[in-house]
Amino acid sequence: MNKAFPILVGGRWRPAGGPATFQALDPATGGTLPGEYPISPWPDVAEALEAGNKAAGELAALGPESIARFLEAFAIRIERRKEELVAAAHLETGLPAEPRLGSVELPRMLDQLRKAAAACRDRSWSRATIDTKADIRSMYGPLGGPVVIMGPNNFPYAYNAMGGGDFASALAAGNPIIAKAHPGHPAATRILAEEAHEAILKIALPRASVQLLYHFAPEDGLRLVSHPDVGATAFTGSRPSGLALKEAADRAGKPIYLEMSSANPVFILPGALDERSTEIAAELFQSCTLAAGQMCTKPGLVVVPDGPAGRGFVETVRKAFEGSEPMVLLGPKVLDGLREATTRLAAKGAERLAGGREPSGHGIRFSPTLFRMSGAGFLEDPSSFQVESFGTLSVIVMAGDMAMMREIATLLDGHLTGAIYSHSGGSDNGEYDAIEPILRTKVGRLLNDKMPTGVAVSPAMNHGGPYPATGHPGFTAVGFPAAILRFAALRCYDHVRAGRLPPELRDANPTGAMWRSIDGEWTQRSL
Amino acid sequence: MNKAFPILVGGRWRPAGGPATFQALDPATGGTLPGEYPISPWPDVAEALEAGNKAAGELAALGPESIARFLEAFAIRIERRKEELVAAAHLETGLPAEPRLGSVELPRMLDQLRKAAAACRDRSWSRATIDTKADIRSMYGPLGGPVVIMGPNNFPYAYNAMGGGDFASALAAGNPIIAKAHPGHPAATRILAEEAHEAILKIALPRASVQLLYHFAPEDGLRLVSHPDVGATAFTGSRPSGLALKEAADRAGKPIYLEMSSANPVFILPGALDERSTEIAAELFQSCTLAAGQMCTKPGLVVVPDGPAGRGFVETVRKAFEGSEPMVLLGPKVLDGLREATTRLAAKGAERLAGGREPSGHGIRFSPTLFRMSGAGFLEDPSSFQVESFGTLSVIVMAGDMAMMREIATLLDGHLTGAIYSHSGGSDNGEYDAIEPILRTKVGRLLNDKMPTGVAVSPAMNHGGPYPATGHPGFTAVGFPAAILRFAALRCYDHVRAGRLPPELRDANPTGAMWRSIDGEWTQRSL
Repeated sequence: MNKAFPILVGGRWRPAGGPATFQALDPATGGTLPGEYPISPWPDVAEALEAGNKAAGELAALGPESIARFLEAFAIRIERRKEELVAAAHLETGLPAEPRLGSVELPRMLDQLRKAAAACRDRSWSRATIDTKADIRSMYGPLGGPVVIMGPNNFPYAYNAMGGGDFASALAAGNPIIAKAHPGHPAATRILAEEAHEAILKIALPRASVQLLYHFAPEDGLRLVSHPDVGATAFTGSRPSGLALKEAADRAGKPIYLEMSSANPVFILPGALDERSTEIAAELFQSCTLAAGQMCTKPGLVVVPDGPAGRGFVETVRKAFEGSEPMVLLGPKVLDGLREATTRLAAKGAERLAGGREPSGHGIRFSPTLFRMSGAGFLEDPSSFQVESFGTLSVIVMAGDMAMMREIATLLDGHLTGAIYSHSGGSDNGEYDAIEPILRTKVGRLLNDKMPTGVAVSPAMNHGGPYPATGHPGFTAVGFPAAILRFAALRCYDHVRAGRLPPELRDANPTGAMWRSIDGEWTQRSL
Repeated sequence: MNKAFPILVGGRWRPAGGPATFQALDPATGGTLPGEYPISPWPDVAEALEAGNKAAGELAALGPESIARFLEAFAIRIERRKEELVAAAHLETGLPAEPRLGSVELPRMLDQLRKAAAACRDRSWSRATIDTKADIRSMYGPLGGPVVIMGPNNFPYAYNAMGGGDFASALAAGNPIIAKAHPGHPAATRILAEEAHEAILKIALPRASVQLLYHFAPEDGLRLVSHPDVGATAFTGSRPSGLALKEAADRAGKPIYLEMSSANPVFILPGALDERSTEIAAELFQSCTLAAGQMCTKPGLVVVPDGPAGRGFVETVRKAFEGSEPMVLLGPKVLDGLREATTRLAAKGAERLAGGREPSGHGIRFSPTLFRMSGAGFLEDPSSFQVESFGTLSVIVMAGDMAMMREIATLLDGHLTGAIYSHSGGSDNGEYDAIEPILRTKVGRLLNDKMPTGVAVSPAMNHGGPYPATGHPGFTAVGFPAAILRFAALRCYDHVRAGRLPPELRDANPTGAMWRSIDGEWTQRSL
C-alpha cells in the first residue's frame, strides 16, 4: 500500500505505480517535512503522455473560451486557499510568508493566470494573417501534443509547473499540460493541482488537460521530453540539467524552451559613481540579497572602473554585505553551489571581501558573499566569472580603464539581462555608446540605471536571452501575449473553404476586437 | 597558382587558401562544365567568420535604409545580367530556360529581394512593442553575428544562398551573410555574388556584409554552424545533411533553421473522386512532374479510397506517368536517391505501376515513376512510405475504408504541406471534419482542392512544418515579413533613456507608417 500522495494522471488522482517516495526538506531547520510524495516509474509518465495526447485533440475542438474560463476559475480557487498555500510554500522554501509569498508572488501568479486568460479570449496572440488576394491565411495554434513543464525551485507560485507562467502560456495556446513538480515544494504544488483539477471538472475541460507527476528519474525526464507524443517542453533550472534535457529534445526534433542561468552583468560608468555611488551600492546590495540571491536576474557580475571612486564603491558594498545576516536558502543544492563557487572563485584569484560563512546551528544558511576580481584576471578566464552562482554571491570586477571595460563586455556569454549605470547629466554618454552595442547582442533585456531583479509581467518584457542563458534568443518566458508563442505552431490555410477555417481566420472578426494582419494592415475590423 | 575562381571573403575577391577544386556537371549530357571552383580549407571559413562578425556590428550601426537600398540595387543588377544567369543555371541544373528559369524563378527571386527591402524599410517586421506605463519597450533585432546560408540544388535563384529567400530575410533583419554555394550551380551563384559585391560597394554597405564560399568539407560545415561567432544558420537540403548540421548547431546553442524533406500527403475523399477524378489525376500528374519532381512540396504520398473509383483514378494517373518522357535531373545524387527509393519501395511491397527506367544515352535522366501500396501495407511500416523521394516519384496508398484513411493520417510524420480534396457540394464534409484535425497538427500548410507545389510569397504563407520537415514548427522560410523573424533576437529595453532607444522604439513613429503594438493596440501613430 502506497502511503504517498496520489498523482494526477488521466484526469483522476491515483497512487503512483511504484513504491519510491521522497519528502520535502525544511530549509529553516534542515529537517524533513511531513508528507510522502511519489517518485513515478516510467509507466506513470507514459500514461500521462497518452492521456495528454488525447486531451490535445479534445482541447483543440473545444476552443479558447473554455480555457480562458478555466484559467480564471483556477485563479479564484487559488485565492481561496491562499493561507494554506503561503504556509506550505514558506515551510518548504524558507521564503518569507510576507511580503514575498503572500503579497508579492501569489498575487503575481494570479495576475499571470488572468492575463493569460485575457490573451486566450482576445486571440490576438495567434497573429492571424490574412492575404485576401492569394486566399492564404495563417495563425499560430496549439502543437498537437501535451506541453511538459518543469519548474524551478525559487518561485513556488509564479513559475510553478502547476500554475506558473509557463503553465498559463502553454494552456492559453491550447495545449494540455504535464507538470513535473519541483521536489523542493511538493505540498505547494499539490494544493495548486487540487484546485486545478477541481476547476477542470467545473469548467468541463478535458480531464487530462492538466496532469501532475511529483518526481521521476532523470532518464525518464530525457525520455519524456524527446517522446514523439510531446508537443514541447519548458524547463527552468540549472544549466547541467537544462543542457541534458536540451540534447534529448533537440535530437528528437522537439521544441524545448530553457531558462538555464545568467550572471546579469551590471556596468557602472565613472560619472554614475561620481554622482551617486552610495545609492547605487545600496541598490546593488538590495538586488543581490533579494530572496537570498535566489533570483534568475540577480546581478552576479558587476564591472566598475578601478580607482578611488571604484574602490570606494566596493567598500560601501562590502560593508553592506558584511553587515547582513546569513540567509536561509531553498535547499542543500543551493548551498552546495555556493560552496563550489566560493572555492572556484578563490582558486581563480578572486578576493573574498565578505561572507562565505555557514553559520552554526540549524538550517541551510549562507552569509551574503562578495568577491572582487581584477579586470586583467577576468580577461584571462572570462567564462569562470560568468557562471551563475545561485544565491547571495556576487563578483565585482575592477576594470583598469574604459577600454578594458569594453573588452570585458565583448567577452560576455549570453545572459538574461545587462544593465548600465551612467551619469544623469550625460557625461558618460560616450562610454555608454561604446559599450551598449556590445552588451546589446549579449542580453535579452537591457536596463539603464536600474538593477535587473524586477521582472514586470509586461507585453514588452523579454525574460530570455542568447545561449546559454536560454536555448533560443527569440522567445520570452514572461509577458503576455508573447510568452504564449513558444508553445504554438504556425498553421497556414491555403485555399481552404470559408466554412472550414478556424474562427480566427474567417472574414468576420471572431470577437470584434481581435487584432489581425489583413493585407499588411493590423486591424480589428471584419473583412 | 590557383586556376579556380576566387572566393568573396572580407569584402574582396581573392583566391581560396587551398588547391582543391570542383567542376559543375552538365546533367543534360552527364559531362563536366568548364570552370574550376575552389573547395575552401578551414582558414577561409575562419576569415569569413571574423570579417562577418565585424560586419555585424557595422551593419547594426548603419540601420535599415542602407540594407533596403542594397537589396533593391542588387535586384536591378541581377536583372541586367538575366540572359547570362539563365544560361548558366540552365546548363548547370538542366531546368528549362523558359518559362521556368527566365520567366518564373528569376522574377520570383527579384520579387523576394524587393519585398524584403520593403519590409526592412517599413520595419513593422520587428514587432516593436511599447508598454508606456512600465516604460518597457522591445523589438526584434539582428543576432550580432553573421548568418550562414546553405541553399539547395533545386532553386538556383529563389533559394540560392547568394540572393534567395533566406539571404533576403537574414539581411533584412540586419545580419551579414556567409553564403555557401550549392556545388550544383556554382556559375549561377558566382554571377549573383559578383553583382552583390558591386551593389555593396555602390551602396557603401560594410564590405563583408555578403561573403561567398563555394564549397568546404562537411566537417568544416559542422564547425561553422556551431562556431561562437555565428548568429544563426539556414539550411535547405537533404535530411541526413540537415540532421548532422542540426546536431552540431544545437549542441552549441546556435539557432538553425532547416528545411529537410517532406512527402506532402494528399488525401482524396470519395466524393471528390466521384465528381472530378480525371481533373484531379491531371493536377496530380502535373504537380508531381513539375521541375522533374524536384520540388520540396511535390506530392509524394497520395491516399485514395480503395474500390472502383479509386482504382480508376490510379489507372488515369498511371497512364499519364507511363506516357511521359524521362526527365533530366539536377545531378547524380538525385538519380541515386530515386534508385534507392525504387528499390526500397519494391522491397516494402509497393507495386511499381509506371517508370523506374533510366533511358540509355547521355544525361542524368529518370522516367516519372508511380507506385501503388495497400493501406494495410502502409500501416505496417508507415515511416518507409513517408521518406521524401526527391524527383518524379510518388506513391498512391489505397485505403480500405475511411477509418483506415484516418489511421494513415494519424501515423504521418511532420510534413510541409497536406492537402484534402473533397466534393464541392459538401458530401465529403463528415470525412473532412474527421481527417482535418489529425492532418492539421502534422503539416505547416493545409490545402483544399489544390496541389501543394505553388508556394506563394505571401505574408500568410507558411513554408515550414513540424519535424522532421523542418527543425521548428513556429517558423516559415517563405513570406515577408514572417520569414525575417528567424534571424532575429528579441531585444528588450527596460527604463532605457529616450535618446538611447533605437528609432523603432522612440515615441515618434520612425517612418510614420510602421506598425507597432503600443499598450496592446496595433497602431501606426506616434506616442
